Amino acid sequence: MATPLILVSNDDGIYAPGIRHLVALMREIGEVVVVAPDSPQSGMGHAITIGNTLRLDKADLFDDLVAYKCSGTPADCVKLAKHHVLKDRRPDLMVSGINHGSNTSISVLYSGTMSAAIEGAIEGLPSVGFSLCDYSSSASFEHVGEYVKKIALQVLENSLPKGVALNVNFPPKRNQPIQGVKVCRQARAKWQEEFDLRRDPTGRKYFWMAGNFVNFDKGEDNDEWAIANNYVSVVPCQFDMTAHHAISILNDEWDI
Amino acid sequence: MATPLILVSNDDGIYAPGIRHLVALMREIGEVVVVAPDSPQSGMGHAITIGNTLRLDKADLFDDLVAYKCSGTPADCVKLAKHHVLKDRRPDLMVSGINHGSNTSISVLYSGTMSAAIEGAIEGLPSVGFSLCDYSSSASFEHVGEYVKKIALQVLENSLPKGVALNVNFPPKRNQPIQGVKVCRQARAKWQEEFDLRRDPTGRKYFWMAGNFVNFDKGEDNDEWAIANNYVSVVPCQFDMTAHHAISILNDEWDI
Repeated sequence: MATPLILVSNDDGIYAPGIRHLVALMREIGEVVVVAPDSPQSGMGHAITIGNTLRLDKADLFDDLVAYKCSGTPADCVKLAKHHVLKDRRPDLMVSGINHGSNTSISVLYSGTMSAAIEGAIEGLPSVGFSLCDYSSSASFEHVGEYVKKIALQVLENSLPKGVALNVNFPPKRNQPIQGVKVCRQARAKWQEEFDLRRDPTGRKYFWMAGNFVNFDKGEDNDEWAIANNYVSVVPCQFDMTAHHAISILNDEWDI
Repeated sequence: MATPLILVSNDDGIYAPGIRHLVALMREIGEVVVVAPDSPQSGMGHAITIGNTLRLDKADLFDDLVAYKCSGTPADCVKLAKHHVLKDRRPDLMVSGINHGSNTSISVLYSGTMSAAIEGAIEGLPSVGFSLCDYSSSASFEHVGEYVKKIALQVLENSLPKGVALNVNFPPKRNQPIQGVKVCRQARAKWQEEFDLRRDPTGRKYFWMAGNFVNFDKGEDNDEWAIANNYVSVVPCQFDMTAHHAISILNDEWDI
């Protein structure tokens, strides 16, 4: 195979440590182009910029690296990369991350990291979002590099089923080495929100959203189980959100 | 059944005509509480507010109506409604819209209207997003009222399968009456972006994103076909994004 072209983005912003690690790893296996947000975009879900303009400027990330910072969301970055920056070239792989924090289970919906990967899949690119289940900005990434490269190489070799992007999460660095890789499903879990009501200096109310993650899932075939047991979790995700099983239920039950 | 409690939100903002129509219709069948964004949030996908505060203030929408406007995203509105405004009461139904513009096919991912409904489903509420495939702010809603009420009543009567929210789109007002309701799948289509490069008064570049919707789907069982043929489309959507069919493919192919 000729040197693969690899598009890199993230949601923590172009100057986050996680994307530096990812770019360094991807440069070992291909030619890298970066288009990433110019500021943190965590929790942006699959937002895109409508009714507003976008900026795209060159960024200095590594010597000899083509890198752009964009004022928009992670999904905007992938669209701009595909249809402007790389207009005449097709990436062989799109990777996003490495996110500072978990994107397991229901968090896939809120995740800017995964929205970049899913946007890549919508554009027909083999795409992977990588996240480290450690929110610390000084978190160690050293235990995950080997797996990031292995997964990227597997995707380059085998591609991915049509309409599928991978949601890859890594356990935080623990005393024991990672046990291996588990291909699994999204755990059944949610964020249980609590709102912290405060008053600003003028006496007006405002809120902080503070959620606790609640895992309802007793299975062992899901991403939460994998991370808890020190495995790398790989969840194939699709952008067809149709609940196909529910179509016949509605057709049978409804009287309209 | 006692008078149902109905939570209403949207993404066009609390003062958009679409939510006024939806509230008026829902008041005919239940007690309504509104928590909606204080400004337009189109294209916000499943974004939530992280690292920033939220405002929530009473809004005057109709006489005798409990209504709040929120500074956050549609998903934030549903979380605040569920865990703060309605902390001790459980809505029987959550509805979002009526959106000014189509949310068929892939647009479900970018849609703030649908993120509110999907957040409702994550919270375990029977939830429906309604959209009118007409972007005009003066679009006629008169032909859809009957269907909005019928669908809301069906959901109140039969509930919805666990983990499923409905994405309902209405055709624009045409010379012929609506043909009926089709339960269908999300069409295989995408937005083909084009970026319009301009220069600001200082000479610095900026971009407008301008997409064309491209429908690849030749089937007749999808939402694009339904709208084109003057049917109401009802797509059951799920928040489990796992591509279950891809798990065995990856397990078979990968060598890690």
